Amino acid sequence: MGTEERGRLYIVGIGPGGREHVTPAALRAIAASEVVVGYTTYIRLIEDIVTGKEVVTTGMTREVQRCTKALEAASSGRTAALICSGDPGIYAMAGLVFELARNRSASGMVPAIEVIPGVPALSASASRLGAPLMHDFAAISLSDRLTPWEEIDRRLHAAAGADFVIVIYNPRSRGRKDHLERAVSIISGYRRADTPVGIVKAATRKDERIIVTALGSVPFEEVDMQSTIIVGNSRTFVWDGRMVTPRGYAGKYEL
Amino acid sequence: MGTEERGRLYIVGIGPGGREHVTPAALRAIAASEVVVGYTTYIRLIEDIVTGKEVVTTGMTREVQRCTKALEAASSGRTAALICSGDPGIYAMAGLVFELARNRSASGMVPAIEVIPGVPALSASASRLGAPLMHDFAAISLSDRLTPWEEIDRRLHAAAGADFVIVIYNPRSRGRKDHLERAVSIISGYRRADTPVGIVKAATRKDERIIVTALGSVPFEEVDMQSTIIVGNSRTFVWDGRMVTPRGYAGKYEL
Repeated sequence: MGTEERGRLYIVGIGPGGREHVTPAALRAIAASEVVVGYTTYIRLIEDIVTGKEVVTTGMTREVQRCTKALEAASSGRTAALICSGDPGIYAMAGLVFELARNRSASGMVPAIEVIPGVPALSASASRLGAPLMHDFAAISLSDRLTPWEEIDRRLHAAAGADFVIVIYNPRSRGRKDHLERAVSIISGYRRADTPVGIVKAATRKDERIIVTALGSVPFEEVDMQSTIIVGNSRTFVWDGRMVTPRGYAGKYEL
Repeated sequence: MGTEERGRLYIVGIGPGGREHVTPAALRAIAASEVVVGYTTYIRLIEDIVTGKEVVTTGMTREVQRCTKALEAASSGRTAALICSGDPGIYAMAGLVFELARNRSASGMVPAIEVIPGVPALSASASRLGAPLMHDFAAISLSDRLTPWEEIDRRLHAAAGADFVIVIYNPRSRGRKDHLERAVSIISGYRRADTPVGIVKAATRKDERIIVTALGSVPFEEVDMQSTIIVGNSRTFVWDGRMVTPRGYAGKYEL
């Protein structure tokens, strides 16, 4: 790494969107940074605290560009923050930064890298639905932009077959609109049509929208790219509009 | 529900332990509460902000008692906060509160219930290890206190077989010490001995301890009940002491 002063890169999770879910650790990392890099929508959520800093915004799908810019800024000896929504370690930028840093390390400087966790979309969505994640769960992204569909298909079968609660990220993509239909069809091979399903759009933001429905009647047209879907396990029930997965099995504790 | 003034119960996630990971939403909910209920260790983490409130602490395994006390306090028309570490919706108290509330609703008052999400142990642990959760993952608890071991066994096989990154909660329990050995043995039927494994104890707390090891050499004696274990998928690698799961598949994007 050499003996020069290295820069520092914070990979910062700002949580689901609502300002009251941003941790002090995230605010401190942003405050300490001279350069702030992120997708335009996420930067807008924290606009007031990036005033006076160098701000680099990029479009939605420019992940490699975004991470490279953040690494370059920090490699020059400065402190930079790469902003992610939710948690930076779950389907976000943290891994890509380390992949790029590994490649750079052969030929040049790599900054000190610190990941600041945030409240992930799955936690925020679950909190709005009730308590659907109280037992073993699997998180699966339906985006086949970076993963072959056969792999996604295999994981859906495995998770559904072993009665995991299933959290679906990226249920629709710009190009393909039938991914969620296919996923629901696979899961329906293992679970009843009345299995509770929750759809959460823009959790904790002003335009938040919550739908509690059932596997046999998912309103596909209501689901967009930013939605998180949670499919209950065989024991999940709906009470008072909430989706609840029991933690224990019948008789294991006295209620 | 009747027409009387109902109380309010906040089920609050205070994150992994470090104060800078507690969200403003969690602090606000606690500040608004007259009664604060929680496991002694977690209450101690936020001791300074519960001064002057009625504090009800209970032991580790008294979950039903803790949730009942919180529901009773709120049902009497007051505002109460039930404190959970991490996220209250992941292997914590949120589901049990709804189960108990459903039972009570037949005969008596039930307060308004709101879940305040927190940074879960899996996010905090992943951030300390690098970026191990960048692709599909499954969370599995090894505690057979409330779940038959056959069910846990089935999920370990399913998750390992479909190449999920696996997050293990409750790797050891007081009674049984060989759960983690059994889990590692199952996963080893599907993954190479050099698959990266991360062990995180007390993430973000003063006594935090991070171990990056491999599936074939897990130091079982270093793992306690509070540890979170993350087992990489077939593509997870270690670089510069960090555990990284690539987000995309080879050739899917240019680095």
